[in-house]
Order: sequence, then structure tokens, then C-alpha cells
Amino acid sequence: TNLFVKIRSNKLFELFVISVIIASALLVGVKTYDVSSTMHTITNYLDIFITTFFICEITIRWLAEPKKLDFFKDFWNVFDTIIVIVSLIPIENGDMALIARLVRVFRVLRMISFIPELRILLTSLIKAMPQLGYVMLLMFIIFYIYAAIGSTLFEDINPELWGDITISLLTLFRVMTFEDWTDVMYETMTVYPLSWIFYLTFIFFTAFAFLNMVIGIVVNVMEE
Amino acid sequence: TNLFVKIRSNKLFELFVISVIIASALLVGVKTYDVSSTMHTITNYLDIFITTFFICEITIRWLAEPKKLDFFKDFWNVFDTIIVIVSLIPIENGDMALIARLVRVFRVLRMISFIPELRILLTSLIKAMPQLGYVMLLMFIIFYIYAAIGSTLFEDINPELWGDITISLLTLFRVMTFEDWTDVMYETMTVYPLSWIFYLTFIFFTAFAFLNMVIGIVVNVMEE
Amino acid sequence: TNLFVKIRSNKLFELFVISVIIASALLVGVKTYDVSSTMHTITNYLDIFITTFFICEITIRWLAEPKKLDFFKDFWNVFDTIIVIVSLIPIENGDMALIARLVRVFRVLRMISFIPELRILLTSLIKAMPQLGYVMLLMFIIFYIYAAIGSTLFEDINPELWGDITISLLTLFRVMTFEDWTDVMYETMTVYPLSWIFYLTFIFFTAFAFLNMVIGIVVNVMEE
Amino acid sequence: TNLFVKIRSNKLFELFVISVIIASALLVGVKTYDVSSTMHTITNYLDIFITTFFICEITIRWLAEPKKLDFFKDFWNVFDTIIVIVSLIPIENGDMALIARLVRVFRVLRMISFIPELRILLTSLIKAMPQLGYVMLLMFIIFYIYAAIGSTLFEDINPELWGDITISLLTLFRVMTFEDWTDVMYETMTVYPLSWIFYLTFIFFTAFAFLNMVIGIVVNVMEE
Ligand code: NA
Ligand code: NA
Repeated sequence: TNLFVKIRSNKLFELFVISVIIASALLVGVKTYDVSSTMHTITNYLDIFITTFFICEITIRWLAEPKKLDFFKDFWNVFDTIIVIVSLIPIENGDMALIARLVRVFRVLRMISFIPELRILLTSLIKAMPQLGYVMLLMFIIFYIYAAIGSTLFEDINPELWGDITISLLTLFRVMTFEDWTDVMYETMTVYPLSWIFYLTFIFFTAFAFLNMVIGIVVNVMEE
Repeated sequence: TNLFVKIRSNKLFELFVISVIIASALLVGVKTYDVSSTMHTITNYLDIFITTFFICEITIRWLAEPKKLDFFKDFWNVFDTIIVIVSLIPIENGDMALIARLVRVFRVLRMISFIPELRILLTSLIKAMPQLGYVMLLMFIIFYIYAAIGSTLFEDINPELWGDITISLLTLFRVMTFEDWTDVMYETMTVYPLSWIFYLTFIFFTAFAFLNMVIGIVVNVMEE
Repeated sequence: TNLFVKIRSNKLFELFVISVIIASALLVGVKTYDVSSTMHTITNYLDIFITTFFICEITIRWLAEPKKLDFFKDFWNVFDTIIVIVSLIPIENGDMALIARLVRVFRVLRMISFIPELRILLTSLIKAMPQLGYVMLLMFIIFYIYAAIGSTLFEDINPELWGDITISLLTLFRVMTFEDWTDVMYETMTVYPLSWIFYLTFIFFTAFAFLNMVIGIVVNVMEE
Repeated sequence: TNLFVKIRSNKLFELFVISVIIASALLVGVKTYDVSSTMHTITNYLDIFITTFFICEITIRWLAEPKKLDFFKDFWNVFDTIIVIVSLIPIENGDMALIARLVRVFRVLRMISFIPELRILLTSLIKAMPQLGYVMLLMFIIFYIYAAIGSTLFEDINPELWGDITISLLTLFRVMTFEDWTDVMYETMTVYPLSWIFYLTFIFFTAFAFLNMVIGIVVNVMEE
């Protein structure tokens, strides 16, 4: 296995792996264009080459590992393995072609697992999540109460926006992003002229909770 | 009362209470869907059970309190009691059914009173409010002056947006959220070509006041 | 003048002044509604009373001043005097009625001059302005260059949005607030398919400059 | 060269240069209006004067430099020279007139090179960029994956929004700015009712990455 360790830590090999990852990302992009039949064949061959290469690369990394089982104790190794295995499944026929193409998209994520800085960045982003837990729970409770009120009062006005609690939650998220929120409001104001209170208090509460979430992150980052 | 103290601090009891609170929240959600007649009967029975359970639970907490009157000195106990009592009022007949459903929505708020972390979070959010008092007063004065100018100048152009000072305040809030604000502006510019000054200065002043509000909160939080 | 000093510092007098200021603000709001003829007469009488009272109040404050000329060295005294004098001008006849009403709106600003906390807040906001000077100049240069390019390239596509540099600046401000900016972009993309570069670089530059402005303020406030 | 050094550091000369730069900026603005034939001739003469003056000014600064080659080691000198040389190219005839006008717009940028504070500000802004490198790469990967998925799934629904990966990236940028994003979503929801998950996760991920970018800058600035 000494040979595999050498290959793994070889600068040229690393450069080649990153090139193949970028090539696989570009291939995903090229496939979204209407390409000629010849080009289509080329992309298919490239696809097979990339899949094969990724299998080899992960095998080399696995063989280079002194303790074979420890390899799968690292999150990013498991991540890479799953991505590669999933894109192995042969579903190129008929309706499944769409799914096969979608699965290959996720190979772009190998960019994250291969660049240490991105890996660290993502880890630190994910670590920041639990600290937001209670603010997000509070925000969800606000959303839920307003969605329940909204679908109770406004259901008959516009069932496409307030039909049930799931649709109402989506409508409220839209209101929070200020996306044509006055259209939604003016519509309900024709029946309930005071319903602007509903929207303004909702915007106020969520903006305030969101602001506190942002400040919470800033303070957490500062303390480190 | 020793028995009630034991029940109150029992882990299983706590778990059961939180389960019933979540169930009552889900029930509120389910009711927004068009459910079958059988399902409707089930939700009604569940409703009665939840109401009964909440009364028992608050009674137990009240009996577990050494000094009975001190129970109502705690804001969250009063909060819980009001929510439960209000949902007791029997208004299931006819037009009032809507109000009865709305009232039950607020039982979701018991989630906040029951989870200590959410209670602390909300308390700290409310404590941050008075520090914002003067910036919000300043913002309201800006809004009020612009609304008065707007409803004086633009009333005849579009009474639905600038009819009186209340509607103008709502329109200005819309402008502040950048929601189709150019539609509002282009309309008044057909009569007063320089009215863009009105909107741009308004956006500038409110954005500046808002920015100072945010920075004010950040600085306050940092100092703690 | 000892009497005037006593009046000025009398708590009851202060309370009465603030009441009259609030009354004058409410009066401005009431006038935006369609009021009955009787009510209209009442508001006119109230208006005369408020104007008279404000003159008396400023006179008292001026007489209470030991050195009469120093009174006008204070910005807020000058501010109050101008607001009161301007609302004295009798322009209640015909077309000028509109201007007369607008002028009275600015009496609401006396709220700021009378409440010390608001005065301090506004002073600190204005003090923060010059520090933003160069970022705002940089932002204006970005706006100006893009407006010049825009009105050169897109003038024939839509003269209402890109007719000359002033209109282009307004259109770019609209793009910066993300207000239906894709409508503006898609229109020019029909002629110049690559014009999305124009919008995306503009959004990137202004967002970056704006972010730096905000961070600049935060850092300045922190240092104090 | 002693004479040139004197000219260069002369306050009056500096004032004159800044006046000409402002005049050249105003000229760019004036040209976007429909001006009379006489005015057009005047602007042309002014243009020639400004170009000539800029050449003289840069020559003076170059002659004032003790070591002639070091002059071009300074970024801003090269910047000024290129801007002036480019606007020398005589392309006033026919179709090229548009390009000639566009080139002259960039003379406004001399404002930045001439005011030291703006130069410092821009330098500090550019210095902040590399620190954002990895967050921007992460954001681009998120955009790329969603654009690939979007153009795979939604291509047939609306090729103008999801035709290929470039258009999809533009559409996703639009969604990130919340610009009529629900219109885009509701359209795809008619075919894939669960496609709101696509948009909401995208908004969540990009908002989170953007927030971290902002916080990253704040922390970097604070540390200095
Ligand atoms: Na918007
Ligand atoms: Na919009």
C-alpha cells in the first residue's frame, strides 16, 4: 500500500483529480445545451471515463489508508463514495434518463470534498446552525400561528394562496421576502379591511426575529 | 400538595404535556384542510380532550404552588391560564365557529411558555424593544410627515393609495419594502414630474434610520 | 425676564407645549380625511390657536434668554422660529391652500426640536454622514458611469427608462432596490443579449459599496 | 524637470485639473440629452479641449517624475494613461460614434484616480475581495448545482428561464434577489407541485452563505 500513499500525496495526481472534477462539472453544464448527436456521444464517453476515474481515485485513497475501516469513519470519504456509487447505477434508458442526469449533477459537490478550505468553511457553517435552533423554532411558531389564522380567515378569498396550512406557510414566506406582498394584502383587504394588521404584525415579528438571528451569529463569531 | 409538586416535576408528565401541546398545534393545522366528516368528529373529540388536559395541567401546577396567589405573579402562568380559559368559551354554533377556531390557534403559543429557552429568548427580545423607542419614534415622525404630504398632493391621483393619512402610511410602508414602489412613483410622476424627490428622500431617510436601529441593537448586544 | 425663565422651565408649561405639538400633528392627519363643513371650521380655528400659541411659546423662550442674540445661535431655536413664521404666511385663498396645508405639515417636526432625546439622536445621525462622504461619492461615480452607458446604449429601446442621464439614474436606483429589475433587463436583452453583464456588474458594485458603507458605520460606532 | 514638479504640486493647477475632470463628467451627462446643433458643436470642441488638456496634464506628471520608468510602476498612472489614450482614437464616423461616446464615459473614472481618499477606499475594497474567495466559490457551486437541476427539470416548462445553464444561473440570481420569484416558482409548481422545495432550499442556502460572507467581512475589518 506504500505505492498508493505515494500516489495519493502526489501533486500531479491531485492536480489531475481536480481537473477531472472540474471537467465533470463542465460536462453537467454542457449537457443542458441542445448538443449535436456527435457531441452527445462524446459527452457519454466522457461520462464513463469520469465515473471510472472517480472509482479508481477513491479505491486508491482507500488502499492508501492504513486501517481500512477507518476510511469510512471520515464523513467526506463516505460522502465521496456515495456520490460515486450513486452515479454508477445504470438508468440511461427511457424515463430514467432524467434521474441519471440529475444524479450526475451532484458530482459537482466533490469540489467541496476535495478543496480543504471549502470543507472547513462548510463545517463551520454547519456548526453555526444549532446555535440558531431556538430562534428558528420561534420563527416557525410565528409562521405556524399566522398560517393557521390566514387559512382560517382567507381560505374562501383565495384558496390558491390560503387553501391549507402548507400553502399558507409558502404564502407567508413570500410575504416575508416582500415579493408582491401588497397584492396578497390588497386582495384580503377587500373582504377584511383591517387585514393589513395581519401582514404588518407578521412582517414586524419575522423581521425582528430574523434580525436577532443575524445578530446572534455575529456575536457568536466575534466571541471565537 | 406534595403529590402535585411530584407530578409537576415528573419527567414523564413533562413529556406528556409537550406531546399534547404539539398535538394541539398539529390539530390546528389539520383543521385547515378539508377533512372527511369522520375526521371532523375525531378532531372535535381531540379538541375536548386537549382542553380538558390543559385545565388539569394548570390546576396541578397551581396546586403545586406553595403560595396560591404567587402563581399569578408569574407572567407565563397568567399567559397559560388566559389561553386555556379563552378556549373554554363554547362558541361552536354558527358564525362564531370561525372565532372558536381562531382562539384555539393561540394554544400553539403554549409552546413558548413551556420551553424555557424560548421563554428566555422572547424575554430578551422584548427587553431590546425600549432601547429602540426613540429611533422608532423618529421613524414614525418621518412616516407621518411624508404620509401627510403624500395624501395632500397625491390624493386626487390615486385615492386608493393616498386617500387619507392611514392609507398613505400603508403605501409608504410598501415603498419602504421596495414592493412595486416604482409603480406608485411613476403614477404620481405623470402629474408631478419631480415627485421622485419625494420617494427618494423618503427611502433615504427611512433606510438611514433603519440602519441606525440595527446598529443600535448590535452595539447594545455587544456591550452585554 | 425672570418670569419668562420660570414659565419656560415650568413642568406644566412643557406638558402643555408638547400637547399642542401633538394636537397640531393630529390636526395635519385629520385634514387629509374628507371632513364635514363644521369640522372644517373647527380645524381652521384650532389652526389659528396653534399658530398663536407657538408664537407666544417662542416669544417666551426668547424673552427668557439672558442674551437676546444668543437665542438665534442655537440651531433648534432658529429651526422652530422658521417653522412658526412660515406657517404664519396667509395663503389660504385658492390655489395656495395646498401650499398652506403642506407648510403646516412641517410643524410636526417641532416634535424633534422639543424632545431632547430625538434632538440628540438626529444630531448623532447627521454627524455620521460626513464619514460616509467618500463611499457615497464612489457610489455616485458608479451610478453616473452606468447611467451614461445605459442612456447611450438603451435610449432607443425604452426612452422612458433610459431617455437621458437623470432618468437613467432613477432607473438604476430602481435596479439597485431589485424593483422589477428583470423587466428592465429582459427588455434590453432582446436587443443586446449580453446586457445582463451591465446589470449584474452594476448590482455587484453597488451592493459591495453599500456593504462597505454599512460596515464603515458599524466600525465607527464601535470605536466610540 | 524642476518646473514640472512645481506645476504638478501647484494648488491652482490641481484645482484646474479637478475642474476639467468634473467638466468632462458633466459633458458625458449633457450628451445623453437631445441637444441643439450649436450645443452639439460646443460639446465637440469641449471634448477636444478636455482630451488635449488630459494629455498635457499626464505629460507634466510624467516629466515631473525623477525616474521616467517608475511612472508606469504606479497603477493609477497607467490607469490614467490608458483612459486618455483610448479616448484619443478617432472613431467619430458612423457606427463607431456610439463606441467613441462610451469610451469617453470612462474618463469619469479619473475622479477616482485624482482624489487620494477615493483611491485608498477602492484599494481597501479590492483588498477585501480575496478573503471572500472561498465563500464566493461555495456560492457559485450552489448556484451551479441548482442551475443544472433547474435546466434539467424545468427546461420544457419555460425555456426562456431554464433553457440552458447560463440562463438558469441568471434566473437563480433573480430568485436570490427575490425579484418576482414566486412567478417563477408557481409556473414550475403546475408541473412539479413539490418544486417549492427547490426554491426554498436554494434561498436558504444562498442567504446563509451570503450572511456568512457579510459576517466574514465585518470580522476581518474589526480585526484590523
Ligand atoms: Na421586491
Ligand atoms: Na416585485
